Amino acid sequence: MISVEEALQHVLDAAQPRPPARVSLRETLGRMLAEDVASDVDSPPHDKSLVDGYAVRADAFVRRGERPPVELAVIEQVTAGEVPTSEVGSGTTIRVMTGAPIPRGADAVVMTEDSQWREEPGVPLGTVQFAQDIEVTAGQNIMPRGTSLRRGQVVLDSGSPIGPAQIGLLAEVGRTDVAVVPPPEVAILPTGDELVDVGFVPGPGKIRNSNGPMLISCGQQAGAVVRDLGVGRDEQEQLASLVREGLAADVLVIAGGVSAGVRDLVPQVLTEAGVQQVFHKVRLKPGKPLWFGLHQAGENDRGQAASTLVFGLPGNPVSSFVCFHLFVAPVIARLAGHTRVTAPRVSGTLCEAYQQRGDRVTYHPAWIDDGDPPQVQLIAWRGSADLRALVDANTLAIFPADNRSYSQGDQVQCLLLPTARDSVWPRAAVRRTL
Amino acid sequence: MISVEEALQHVLDAAQPRPPARVSLRETLGRMLAEDVASDVDSPPHDKSLVDGYAVRADAFVRRGERPPVELAVIEQVTAGEVPTSEVGSGTTIRVMTGAPIPRGADAVVMTEDSQWREEPGVPLGTVQFAQDIEVTAGQNIMPRGTSLRRGQVVLDSGSPIGPAQIGLLAEVGRTDVAVVPPPEVAILPTGDELVDVGFVPGPGKIRNSNGPMLISCGQQAGAVVRDLGVGRDEQEQLASLVREGLAADVLVIAGGVSAGVRDLVPQVLTEAGVQQVFHKVRLKPGKPLWFGLHQAGENDRGQAASTLVFGLPGNPVSSFVCFHLFVAPVIARLAGHTRVTAPRVSGTLCEAYQQRGDRVTYHPAWIDDGDPPQVQLIAWRGSADLRALVDANTLAIFPADNRSYSQGDQVQCLLLPTARDSVWPRAAVRRTL
Repeated sequence: MISVEEALQHVLDAAQPRPPARVSLRETLGRMLAEDVASDVDSPPHDKSLVDGYAVRADAFVRRGERPPVELAVIEQVTAGEVPTSEVGSGTTIRVMTGAPIPRGADAVVMTEDSQWREEPGVPLGTVQFAQDIEVTAGQNIMPRGTSLRRGQVVLDSGSPIGPAQIGLLAEVGRTDVAVVPPPEVAILPTGDELVDVGFVPGPGKIRNSNGPMLISCGQQAGAVVRDLGVGRDEQEQLASLVREGLAADVLVIAGGVSAGVRDLVPQVLTEAGVQQVFHKVRLKPGKPLWFGLHQAGENDRGQAASTLVFGLPGNPVSSFVCFHLFVAPVIARLAGHTRVTAPRVSGTLCEAYQQRGDRVTYHPAWIDDGDPPQVQLIAWRGSADLRALVDANTLAIFPADNRSYSQGDQVQCLLLPTARDSVWPRAAVRRTL
Repeated sequence: MISVEEALQHVLDAAQPRPPARVSLRETLGRMLAEDVASDVDSPPHDKSLVDGYAVRADAFVRRGERPPVELAVIEQVTAGEVPTSEVGSGTTIRVMTGAPIPRGADAVVMTEDSQWREEPGVPLGTVQFAQDIEVTAGQNIMPRGTSLRRGQVVLDSGSPIGPAQIGLLAEVGRTDVAVVPPPEVAILPTGDELVDVGFVPGPGKIRNSNGPMLISCGQQAGAVVRDLGVGRDEQEQLASLVREGLAADVLVIAGGVSAGVRDLVPQVLTEAGVQQVFHKVRLKPGKPLWFGLHQAGENDRGQAASTLVFGLPGNPVSSFVCFHLFVAPVIARLAGHTRVTAPRVSGTLCEAYQQRGDRVTYHPAWIDDGDPPQVQLIAWRGSADLRALVDANTLAIFPADNRSYSQGDQVQCLLLPTARDSVWPRAAVRRTL
């Protein structure tokens, strides 16, 4: 048996980011960029107005002794998307809207709020008067061409995570498609003759297949494209056929059939399918029977070595959930090109005593609050089939292998689960002021 | 002009969770449950073995003076999914796999690891011997029927967020479909004659439509179903037609056309479409021109009052991004049935001086790290069209309305953006030990 840390090292060593693929801009949210992206334009493409106002020559506003109001004739009006046709002189101005190009001759924009417009016979666009006490400096309210982006400049580096702001920037520089690390495909295969489909009433000795739907949504939540293989029976040929189908994916997750029972066929079927065992059993509670192996399928059509990472998770729901978050989720993140792949950990204060025993680290379902320091409430957990304990958990409290009595008030490390939005976001020194 | 807090109160007052809808179990990830769910089964459905081992009578192991090894004849073998047909007596045992029902007569299971099996002529399944020093107590390694779930018991309350564990539990209790709050539909409508499509090279005075793709992905990230309306021109009839289409959604987000420019048609077109203005302009930087209104469309086919929340965001990308996260994202969360709807806030230490001026609160793009306390680096920000500042940001530092000089080392509140996975998760007292 190896430790959790050794096991994680093994699985991450076997996981490399998937080869890049070109996708349309709309399919990039949440992906990692797989090329350097340069701008093909200056942004703004021209000196532009940052406000609605009047483009002027700042020297028309030089302070004199008496400081009379400045009055200018409006000779044109330009909105965003239009191009000014005339030039601003010392006695004239052009009205500009936010985003409009700055006309020739002008070197500042005065906001509409600081002006008073009036009709004037014989002046088609009227005149505008400015208060005595305003200060106008050259460059005011103008964003010079190329301030934000310069043509040819790399604006996003390969390896950047793509969120809405990156998508806006990619659009600004004209990228209709872009190279990204595609999400890995993960095949899910719960096994066991005792499993019946969700829509059926289980007969004697049977239970419903809860692992399948749970692991499928774990995979989706972790960002994978999930292939549902249905249920594998404890029957060599049917299992082998589903395993072969699953080996077309980047990751094959099998649940059940990996402990020491007579019908635990999974390791044998995997070996016969050419999957090489990397490890079997981890010093972990729950999750000891975890099996991990690799299937080398030769080169793919891009000439890259394609391999499938194969997990045999224990069949009990809590065990398979814990193993998924400890090992499978980091692998999915790594295949998708992420660099931080393990779940964040937070230290909290135990609300009750706990007795840890034995040579395996325990990951105990718990609830961590947002206090400072956070308080950790262990959730009553009646064995590794008890999904209700997980439903109430937002974290797994970690008790290292040892014989040790923890007291109320002791510190404990907690692995944070990808909590639903309404869960508490545990953090110290946070005040929700809004 | 109203404050950010008043504006948020207005938009949240207008947003009620959408009416529940029945969806298949596979479509529930991330939704809020809209009914109480009771179990239709006991779980486990029978007393079951928690290990691979031998079902025995504990009294066969009562310690005697000499403590000879206990030897039992194996009379049957039962895996998960099977039902035992015989009964365990004091000289016999039945081999049981993890999850198998406990046979009549047995009251404990001894793990395979603590036993030694051997063939025995005339005993078809052989005999098994147990070490002298093992302790066997009644109930050992057995999970009694109904420990985890009792038939009829409510196992998930209406209002629970649905994650993988909840999906597993819903499967266990036989729910192929379930009532949830469906995600709201959000229509996105960037406007402006200066906008050209991403695939084109902008001519003089034009820029590419970056707001559209950015706001579409903001909506997706916030959990909405997004309807892309294309680009609205500064032309009354075309704009009015797109607005009518958008009013079929739960939320209509228009970008551009809401400041005081001559062609800023949006408020007028909305009024004519029957949208009632709730507020226009907020004491916020960037984002002052924000417009918000309500369209009451009468009753829908379920007899409920259906209304559309209409946002007119400023056209500059940073302004519209800030307004989206301050006002639209909370509305989407509320419509989807969430109770915590605003972004979390964290206090951090400024890495540099900053001069705040004026009567509007500033939300400044920044990077917050995971130090204790977190350090906040302001990102050089060249006006509200500067998407590059957002690309480097994982937070918005909040400077309340005031004339105040902030010094390096001052504390500042930060609104956390929904960061990509590789962003730092800011928190105090966190150690990444894995």
